Amino acid sequence: MMISEYLKGLGQQARAASFSLANLGAPAKRALLQAIAAELAVSRSDILAANGRDVTAARAAGLNDAMIDRLLLNEARLDAIIADIATVVALPDPIGEEIDSRLLDNGLRLSRRRVPLGVIGVIYEARPNVTVEIAVLALKTGNAVILRGGKETIETNLLLAGAIRRALQSEGLPADAVQLIDNPDRALVNGLLRLDRYVDMIVPRGGQGLQRLCAEQATIPVILGGIGICHMYLDSQADVGRALPVIINAKVQRPTVCNALDTLLVHRKQVASLPRIGRELAALGVKLVACADSRAQLSDAGIGAELADDDSFATEWLSLTLGIKLVSDVDEAIEHIRRYSSGHSEAILTDNVHTAGHFLNEVNSAAVYVNASTRFTDGGQFGLGAEVAVSTQKLHARGPMGLEALTTYKWLGIGDYTSRG
Amino acid sequence: MMISEYLKGLGQQARAASFSLANLGAPAKRALLQAIAAELAVSRSDILAANGRDVTAARAAGLNDAMIDRLLLNEARLDAIIADIATVVALPDPIGEEIDSRLLDNGLRLSRRRVPLGVIGVIYEARPNVTVEIAVLALKTGNAVILRGGKETIETNLLLAGAIRRALQSEGLPADAVQLIDNPDRALVNGLLRLDRYVDMIVPRGGQGLQRLCAEQATIPVILGGIGICHMYLDSQADVGRALPVIINAKVQRPTVCNALDTLLVHRKQVASLPRIGRELAALGVKLVACADSRAQLSDAGIGAELADDDSFATEWLSLTLGIKLVSDVDEAIEHIRRYSSGHSEAILTDNVHTAGHFLNEVNSAAVYVNASTRFTDGGQFGLGAEVAVSTQKLHARGPMGLEALTTYKWLGIGDYTSRG
Repeated sequence: MMISEYLKGLGQQARAASFSLANLGAPAKRALLQAIAAELAVSRSDILAANGRDVTAARAAGLNDAMIDRLLLNEARLDAIIADIATVVALPDPIGEEIDSRLLDNGLRLSRRRVPLGVIGVIYEARPNVTVEIAVLALKTGNAVILRGGKETIETNLLLAGAIRRALQSEGLPADAVQLIDNPDRALVNGLLRLDRYVDMIVPRGGQGLQRLCAEQATIPVILGGIGICHMYLDSQADVGRALPVIINAKVQRPTVCNALDTLLVHRKQVASLPRIGRELAALGVKLVACADSRAQLSDAGIGAELADDDSFATEWLSLTLGIKLVSDVDEAIEHIRRYSSGHSEAILTDNVHTAGHFLNEVNSAAVYVNASTRFTDGGQFGLGAEVAVSTQKLHARGPMGLEALTTYKWLGIGDYTSRG
Repeated sequence: MMISEYLKGLGQQARAASFSLANLGAPAKRALLQAIAAELAVSRSDILAANGRDVTAARAAGLNDAMIDRLLLNEARLDAIIADIATVVALPDPIGEEIDSRLLDNGLRLSRRRVPLGVIGVIYEARPNVTVEIAVLALKTGNAVILRGGKETIETNLLLAGAIRRALQSEGLPADAVQLIDNPDRALVNGLLRLDRYVDMIVPRGGQGLQRLCAEQATIPVILGGIGICHMYLDSQADVGRALPVIINAKVQRPTVCNALDTLLVHRKQVASLPRIGRELAALGVKLVACADSRAQLSDAGIGAELADDDSFATEWLSLTLGIKLVSDVDEAIEHIRRYSSGHSEAILTDNVHTAGHFLNEVNSAAVYVNASTRFTDGGQFGLGAEVAVSTQKLHARGPMGLEALTTYKWLGIGDYTSRG
């Protein structure tokens, strides 16, 4: 009961604030973002001190080094967070655009106007940069946000949100446009997911467990994403010498992210290339998990590999591990992708235009590539200027989500005391 | 367990069928729709006989005349259903269009291609025309559907779905592109709402109870809609003589639909016009539910009205009832709308361009009108050619949903063995 009253309060305040933001002009929003950057700079030492307390607590709680590195802020990282705000300031403001304007036969002048979504709930884990990033993107598009970060970064997030709220007030805007849930009680996440009276969209930024919790519990539309079981298919007619650097790029450049390669599907006619592919990947520290046939080939060439199974093909590795499977043709590759893909990014490597076209038609993931690395699936790479999340669902937004994904439209109809006939 | 196996089977079959439909060309889909129209015409007497059995059962179960009229098919209604297919055949096919094509600095040729959603689940009540309408719109856009109609029309729906499935087979396509859940067990609805492995979108077409069930239970994205608590605000500077026919149109033309007027907000300076408005509406059979002040005015003029309260203003009347409230200015009207509206359709009646602009900016419903009837919110009126539903949520589709709302897009990236730098 206390939880629901607390959340209801947050929701009402966010909704009220969203009305103040909805019709702000682009210059006012640019000024707001600049004020946030200035306020973060002024609060630098307090923010770093708070982050120090989070790091100390995390060490005491026994978190590993990788996790502590994720929540760590230092001068350089805070500089980068502040510098990123300038990038968002410079982006065009999508709000207010009118599309599909037309005069209907019934005399009505009809158009669709792009407007903010309203209130966005964001649930994320231990990366304090997300607090600023999401607040700034939401405010740029005239939305209010309710933030729920990881409990490991609560001290840092409180300072970051505090600075943002002071900037809002200094610009004469309601501080409650950005609210941070500062209570670590897990029940608050479930409560937030059911706050449909006040919240228009939930963006979970985290792993499979969080995504599933949101899908199961939310009564608010959720943007699922960020899980990538990504495939590349090396066709019989690919140039292996040119393809290999692309495979390596997809797997090795940054193995911990969602657009990294998880499974390489190899046409059986390319089986002679397997030792070369395996050797180059192994030399870069890649661990192979191969189907029985490809494992035998690799083994003959003295390259070790674990045996793949149904579970391994359904795994997002997020590490220097790669599944390998031999397939008889492009259709077997497509079949495998349909079965195991999370709908994020898939690629074909081929010189045959017909096979490429077939793959583009039949594979239905957020991003499908011909002769390119799956690593391109990224808001920055796609030229969106910012990335709210990478959606792997089909409604509202698919793939990298830019500012437009934080907007909706309303229909406007202008008549002259016009009735329907 | 049996239920979940049954639903899983439906889901798998629908998903498999969706792959066969996804890349069909527009001519093949037009031929399919024409085959459906032909098959329905051939099956006419069987369909009407099945509908007769549904009507008999409904009478025996004590359904009232209005409900029986909703499920009734006769020669004329079946003709209309078949004729509507020709309209959909003639609509442009949105599938395959490529948008936002560009060459990125990284050498990638990027575009977004419009593709079908995949599998759509539709849950609806006792209107057999929906069975054909939704199946035809889904197939036109290359989607498979799982239909769950009302138990009152099960016999009719089985015959309609059977005809559609025969047409699919006659065109060499999988019959399972259209599947009807023929078991009235309510648990199947809950199961369908959680079939996220196979179903991409749920469209509930029914009342508040069904909408809420879907929001609560679904793990699949749901398009909520069709609930309209619609407002008109009569401004101090409106021409009452010209405004009154628009008010009457919004309330009286078809009171049982979601875009009909529910509450009239009247500027206090127009209080002298209240008796005229009340008298004209009462003469058309409209029952008034008025705030204390407006009720007193009406009463002085000899016009009866019930006293409005919080609950009555939160009611979608779906009948010849109208709420009336006096407000001091446009902002009080906007405040009332924000509190009670379901986000469907609102209108202002005014001659003042500034007040009109303010209302358009501040009211955030799916459709906002100046000097026009709320009755215009309709796919046909908006020129969309078809209407899947009227969405009152903000994601994916808002307001009347045409064919485009049954599609998504995938990003295509064409490189030349291109790696990310």
